[in-house]
Parts: sequence; structure tokens; C-alpha cells
Amino acid sequence: MITAKLIDNVWATRKASSLNGLKLMLAEVIGGSTEGQWLIVVDTISAGVGDRVIITTGSSARRMLGNDDIPVDAVVVGIIDDDCKLG
Amino acid sequence: MITAKLIDNVWATRKASSLNGLKLMLAEVIGGSTEGQWLIVVDTISAGVGDRVIITTGSSARRMLGNDDIPVDAVVVGIIDDDCKLG
Amino acid sequence: MITAKLIDNVWATRKASSLNGLKLMLAEVIGGSTEGQWLIVVDTISAGVGDRVIITTGSSARRMLGNDDIPVDAVVVGIIDDDCKLG
Amino acid sequence: MITAKLIDNVWATRKASSLNGLKLMLAEVIGGSTEGQWLIVVDTISAGVGDRVIITTGSSARRMLGNDDIPVDAVVVGIIDDDCKLG
Amino acid sequence: MITAKLIDNVWATRKASSLNGLKLMLAEVIGGSTEGQWLIVVDTISAGVGDRVIITTGSSARRMLGNDDIPVDAVVVGIIDDDCKLG
Repeated sequence: MITAKLIDNVWATRKASSLNGLKLMLAEVIGGSTEGQWLIVVDTISAGVGDRVIITTGSSARRMLGNDDIPVDAVVVGIIDDDCKLG
Repeated sequence: MITAKLIDNVWATRKASSLNGLKLMLAEVIGGSTEGQWLIVVDTISAGVGDRVIITTGSSARRMLGNDDIPVDAVVVGIIDDDCKLG
Repeated sequence: MITAKLIDNVWATRKASSLNGLKLMLAEVIGGSTEGQWLIVVDTISAGVGDRVIITTGSSARRMLGNDDIPVDAVVVGIIDDDCKLG
Repeated sequence: MITAKLIDNVWATRKASSLNGLKLMLAEVIGGSTEGQWLIVVDTISAGVGDRVIITTGSSARRMLGNDDIPVDAVVVGIIDDDCKLG
Repeated sequence: MITAKLIDNVWATRKASSLNGLKLMLAEVIGGSTEGQWLIVVDTISAGVGDRVIITTGSSARRMLGNDDIPVDAVVVGIIDDDCKLG
């Protein structure tokens, strides 16, 4: 999984109907040599801007949604504890 | 998912027959450390050149096409609202 | 999908038996920030050295072969028209 | 698979319920041109901080958990022997 | 698929039981802009250190093992002929 910081909400009025009701956020990879890479992720665990989160990508991301037919490849699976230092 | 800008249409007369009728576009990743990466994507939601879009990749992309047998690994799943600032 | 130029044929006498009869080619990514990356791809649509092609990767690539048991992760799915400018 | 060094534990009180009980660790890629990339991985073979490990990613990672519905994309599948020099 | 050179054997006494009996090797990507990237791969076609090989990654790699439950994401699928120049 990837460590990232949520930096913004993303709004897309025109989108796949299967994405309706899903919360989209912009995440920026933190730490390591891929620092700064951007991803758009789906959040289902009430994470917020500023949170450091764990992101699962690929087919595994769909396991978070309980519906294998949604075209999503990155989801927030956890919020890293505030007092957890990394690295 | 990836944030990208659609920068051109792509024409391929000779292609897999299962791609017939699909609209192919060239997308350029925006923002973050992978800025500038190129992808060819399938669009089914009437996006246009200049639009900033959300792209789903990998096996999840096939979920957008309603047919798991099409050899496609990147699709437009949403158009980011014009007034949505990112980052 | 990825935009690449086919730059050579690849010969491998010793290989997985399920690859027998498949044409292997060396492709170089063109355009964008991953320019120059090398991939070995399977071609089933009679592409040739010098052609600019569209490459599908991952599990989606196996959809091009009509057999989900072949260990291949990159295939040519289209040849970009000669008069198609990109970007 | 990827060669990495485990550099820390990761704590996430708020997370997907399917991740409860799984041990999460921070891994840093070692060797080669992607040196320093960070991944969060699941460990089920009692690896510890400082161990050099083999990490499987993507859908294959779920094969390590015996449950295809867990949203995990990176797991430790082996610990490299102490006296094994690499490269 | 990826072009790489096998540079070493990898020994891991403690590993997933499903990996028992599989030969693990360290491979280094050759050619192109990802030159030097390291991967650990499974070899089932008797490749050796120094061989230039074709590596399949992701879910497609499992197709080489005849068992979809093994947590492996990279396998050698061919050995490039000695007299085959690339690029």
C-alpha cells in the first residue's frame, strides 16, 4: 500500500454513474522516492483533508467497496495514527 | 485514479476488432511527480480535448466498459469540475 | 494504454511453451515523462519495426490473446495512423 | 517481487474492518533504481524491523492472506537470509 | 514484459510455504529509462546468472506456475537468444 496525505476534495459532476455517492479526494504520496505523486482516491472511512492515510491500489482497491463492478483503482483503507512516526 | 488532461484524439485504423467504436484519446498526467506522463485512454462519457479528467487504470478500467473481454487498461471515469482547484 | 514505437524483434528459443508461436517485439515508450522505457510486447495484428503502436498492459493484455492462461502482460492492440500527430 | 527493508511499524486505529488483526509495516525498497520508495506491507511471517524482505504486490499479494476479499496490495512473502548478498 | 539480466540467486529460508521449491533470482532491468531497477523473480525454465531474460509481471505471472494461489508477481518466461541484439 502507499502512504499519502489527503490534500483536497475532488468534484466531478459528470462521471460514471457507478461513482455516484462516492467521495473522491486528492492524495499526495509522502516519503520515499515517489514523494509528491498525485492520486485520486475513494474514501469510505471518513478521512479528511490533512490526514495521512494508507491507500490500496489496483484490483485490491475494489475489495473495499463491496462491489467488484465499480471502476475504481485506489481507496483509503486506513488513517495513520497522529502519533505514529514513519521511517 | 490518475488526474490528467486530455490533449488529443488518437486514430488507429488497424486495431483489435474489440476496440472498434471506442473513442481513444491521449492524456497527459497533471500535478505531482509523474506530471507529463502520457496515457492513451478510452472515453465513454463524452469528454473533450482540454478537459481535466479522472482516469482509472488496470483491471478496474474494464469495469467501465461492461465487457470484461476488451483489452483496455485505462478509461476516463469522470470530468473534474472547471471550478475545482486541485492541491 | 501506452504509446510506444516498435524498435526490434526479440528472439527467445528457450521460453514458456505457452508462448510458442507468439511474435515478441521490443517497444520503446514515446512521449511524456516515461519516454524511453523498454517493454517486450506480443503482437498479433501484424505490426512492424518502426510502427507507433498502442500497448495494453497487465491482466487486460491477456484479453487480446483469447486464452487467459498465457503468461503475457503487454500486447499491441492498435497501430497509430501515420498521419496522426500526438500531443 | 520487490526487495525491501522493513523500517518501522505502522499504526492505524481507524481502518477497514477487514484489516483488523493484520500487522502493517513500512518498507523501503533497496537496491536498483527505485531505491528508497516507500510501501506499507502486511506481514504474516513474523518479520521484524531491520529485516530485508521479499514483497509481492498487486492481486498476487492477496494470495498470501487466504481471503481474496481483503483490500491489501503488498505482503511480505519471505525474509532474505542474512548471509545472502544481493547483486 | 520486461527485459532484465539475472544477477544473483536469492535465498530465503523463512518464507511463505507456498514458495517452497521455487527458485528465486535477482533480476536487473536492462535498457530503456528504467535500467537498473531490481526485481526478484521466480525461474521455472532453468535460466542462470548472466542470462538476459523476459519477465512477466502481475497476475499474468501466476499463469506460469499452474497454480493461481501462489503469491508471486514476477516470473521468467523466456531467455533472450545470445545473438539477439536489442534496440
